[in-house]
This record gives sequence, C-alpha cells and structure tokens, in this order.
Amino acid sequence: MDIKTYLKEKRALVDTFLKTHFASGLLPAILSDPMAYSIFAGGKRIRPVLALAAYEACGRTADEIVPFASALELIHTYSLIHDDLPAMDNDDLRRGKPTSHKVYGEGMAILAGDALLTEAFYLLSSHSHDCSTVRSSAVLKIVREVAMAAGAHGMVAGQAEDIQAEGTGQDGEHLAFIHTHKTGALITASVRMGAILANAGKRRIGSLTRYGENIGFAFQIVDDILDIKGNSAELGKPTGSDERKKKLTYPGLYGIEPSMRKAEELVRGALDALGDFSDAADPLREIARYLLQRTN
Amino acid sequence: MDIKTYLKEKRALVDTFLKTHFASGLLPAILSDPMAYSIFAGGKRIRPVLALAAYEACGRTADEIVPFASALELIHTYSLIHDDLPAMDNDDLRRGKPTSHKVYGEGMAILAGDALLTEAFYLLSSHSHDCSTVRSSAVLKIVREVAMAAGAHGMVAGQAEDIQAEGTGQDGEHLAFIHTHKTGALITASVRMGAILANAGKRRIGSLTRYGENIGFAFQIVDDILDIKGNSAELGKPTGSDERKKKLTYPGLYGIEPSMRKAEELVRGALDALGDFSDAADPLREIARYLLQRTN
Repeated sequence: MDIKTYLKEKRALVDTFLKTHFASGLLPAILSDPMAYSIFAGGKRIRPVLALAAYEACGRTADEIVPFASALELIHTYSLIHDDLPAMDNDDLRRGKPTSHKVYGEGMAILAGDALLTEAFYLLSSHSHDCSTVRSSAVLKIVREVAMAAGAHGMVAGQAEDIQAEGTGQDGEHLAFIHTHKTGALITASVRMGAILANAGKRRIGSLTRYGENIGFAFQIVDDILDIKGNSAELGKPTGSDERKKKLTYPGLYGIEPSMRKAEELVRGALDALGDFSDAADPLREIARYLLQRTN
Repeated sequence: MDIKTYLKEKRALVDTFLKTHFASGLLPAILSDPMAYSIFAGGKRIRPVLALAAYEACGRTADEIVPFASALELIHTYSLIHDDLPAMDNDDLRRGKPTSHKVYGEGMAILAGDALLTEAFYLLSSHSHDCSTVRSSAVLKIVREVAMAAGAHGMVAGQAEDIQAEGTGQDGEHLAFIHTHKTGALITASVRMGAILANAGKRRIGSLTRYGENIGFAFQIVDDILDIKGNSAELGKPTGSDERKKKLTYPGLYGIEPSMRKAEELVRGALDALGDFSDAADPLREIARYLLQRTN
C-alpha cells in the first residue's frame, strides 16, 4: 500500500464532510467564518485519519464514521487557536497564515475556539442515526473519551503545565506529563474512537490504545525536532520558536540524536502493539513509520 | 410551596455534587483550582435547578439527574470566565470577587473556561449507568441539545454578536438575536434537558420549551434592568456597566417601564405554557414568578 495515497484519500473524506458542514448555512456567519478560516488553513487531519484507520483495522469501512472522526479536527483546531493567543504562545503565524486573533481580533478568536470545541460535541452526538452499525451507547462512550482527552484530564492540563513551565528550566518528568497530556491524549482517543465505534473487544481496544500512546509521544518528539532543524517554509511557521520561548522540549532536554532514537523506539512499540492485527491494520503501521520520515 | 426553600434545597443538591466532584482528585490541581474558584464564587445554579424542576414536573425525582443538571453550571461558569476576559467585556469583578483572569492571569483563565466547557460534556456522558431510568439514547440527545445551545448555534453566537454590537447603536432585531442566543438558548436547553431525561412526550417537551423560551428572555431583561437600577453590593459588580460599554440592552432601547411590562408578559406566557401540567410543575411556576420579584 502507498501511505501517501491513503492519507490523501482519507483526508479528502474528512475535508469533504467539513466543507459540506460549514457550507450548510446552519451556523451564523459571524462565527462560521472564523471557524472555517482556521479549519481550512491547512492541516494533515491526522487525528481523524487515525480514527478512520483504527476503524478499518477492526474490519470496518471508514466512510461510516466520517462525522465522528471529523469532530476530532474541530477540537485540534480549537486548541491551536487558543494556544496561539497573545496570553498563551503569542504566535502570529500558523501553517504559513496569520493566526485567528491576527485576522479576527482576540475576542473573536477566543469565541471561534469555544465554538469549534462545542461544535465537536454537536457533531459527535448528531450522527448515530446516520449509521446503522453505530449504537447510542458506543457514541456516548466516545463523547466521554473525547471529553476526557481534550479537557482537564488531558489536553488542557498539558497546555496549562506548558504555559506555566515556560522559562522555568528543564525537567524530564514534567515534560512527559506535558507531552502525554497535550498531544498524546487526543491522539490516543482518536485511535480508541475507531476501535470503540467498531465495537472491538477489550483486548483489541487495549492494543490500539498502546499503539496510540506510542505514536502520540513519538509525534510530539518529532514535532519538537522539526521545530529545531526543520525549514520554516515547510512548517509554515518560524523554526526555533520553542527555544526562543524556553519551552520544555524533548530534544532540548536530551539532544536531537537521543530524541530520534526515542521516537524510533516508540514507533517499534506501536508496531508491536499491532502484532495480532491482520493487514487491515497496515495503514496504521504505515502511519507510524511515516512519522519518522518527516524528520528526514 | 415556598420557592425560596425549594431553590435552596435544589441548589444544595447541585453544590454537594459539584463539591464532591472537585474534591475527588480526578483533575490536576493546576486546573482544578481555577475551575473550582469560579464555580464556587457564588451563583444561583438557576440552570441546573430548572433542569431538576422540569424533570419533577414530568413526575420524576430530582435526585436522579443531578450530575447531568450540574453540567449546565459548568457551561454557564465557563461562559462567565470568557466573557469577563480583557478581550471581551474586561470585567475585574464578578459576584463581588476578582474575576478569573485577575487571580490566575489571562492564559490560565482561558484554559479554566476551556476545561469547564469540556468537563461539562464529560459529566453528561459519564453518568447514564448511575441512573437506571435514563437511557443512552436520551443522554445522547441532551449532549446534542447542550452543544447546540452552548455553541455556535446558540450562546457563543450571542456573545459574538454582543461584542461586535458594542457601541454600534441600538437595534431591536439585533438585540432579540443576542438575548435569545446568549442567555435564552442555554436556559431553554436546561428545561428541555429535564423533559428529555424524563422521556416526556413531544407535546410536553413542546410546552416546556415554550416555558423555557419565555423565562429565558424575561431573565435577560430583568438582568439588564438590575444593571441599571440594582445596587452594586447585591449584584456583586458595579451597576451601570452596560451603559458605560454602550451595550445593547432591552431597557436601554425601550426604557425601564416598558421592559418590566415585557418581562411580565413573558412570565404570563411561561405560566400559560404549563397549563396542562399538574402541581408537580408548581416549582417551575414559582420560579417564573420569582424572576419578576428580583426587580423589586
């Protein structure tokens, strides 16, 4: 299988759904415009694609759960808008474009983020009758998963530690907390979403969770490495920004080479976790390998 | 029945639940502290109480749905924290205490709001098995209701129009949009939550929706009147702040007396909507009447 084609096809499923949703006129323009601006400013849709790929790994057809998977992108985008705010990371550029508060002002950027987060739960709870294979109880379970991963038990806790940790020095335990919460939790929840919606058994959900935790951590390490050695045009934002802000990062704490070794080890762990899965899990396997290629 | 005793008892149910939840240690202190600060800074818990009273109006026992009803208070509190931010209404006091960003800084206040909003969906989706009378499909319906009422279809849209409308002059249609979205939608959803969790029929849900729409609008008008003529100590914030900010308000547009008449008319409409309900709906009736007393 060609992973680039796979990622492109799945991304198109998500983008088509999101475009239709934002073009539906259901949302008032005052919010729909800034929400859509950030949603369609780029992005690899990696969280939705992971949910779709995990669903397929359990023998299902990805098309069935596109609205649920797309909700993950709304949450990811809300977190970027709020992270970029002057009171947080104060970034002017994201994916090569002016950040939300630069275009719409701080107040509207905060509200666009709030609206995207809430709209994610609207999407999650509005589509169970579109899909005969998905039961209400499974959907309720993923609402809970996503809320845990995105909120004070997960992503927001990571961001809170991150802004408090800036400039306070380097500490491995603290860093692990930030990584597993800020990025890891939602990536793991994305993989679990696919498994839960497919009504996978406990053992399979456990394996996919381990896969998610490994690639979630690897993903953040690779991101931090790219911030140091990547090129600005490719990333769509200035490189070296973590260092300027004295952000706690993996390569900052352990060096680039040891960080790469760690990322490779995590990817091996992710592949091991999929040991019992058929070739239906090949896209998940390729996504894990693809992660490391980003640093070359 | 004595409405003040009723409100106090129901408020205690909600407060006990919230205290237990925040004392459980489930949430990391870095967020749990600012979340709890705003949650326990006062507040009448009117939205949870409306959900409990609507549930009782359908012949059920309020205790069964306290976690669901309490989630409404998390959403209300998040909206206050974000509304008070410098980039929005820039208020230093709320309920007589320094606002979240004054105590924790802007970044943490934004995150505390984000965390409360997300935690609301965690609460909504975590308690269906605690209560044998509540089905997953009904819970999923209220997740959708709350997401619609709180997000870009409702409250956030009202707030967006509100901050854009400041200082741009007075317009009745615009004002009605702001009121029905910013306050009305979540109050109506609170009443509907009770009805939906009680598995009420379409007709009853329709009547309770009409009740909710009426008192939601009346509530906002009364709030605006209190901002003009209330006393600062009782409100816990300076009065006249709407006028200073050139906020679009009902009494600002139509005058205090006509606004009172409008609120009374809305309360009559709310009582009419309950025509077919037994005395189990008396608390809802008294809450509607109590609204008007606040202005005396």
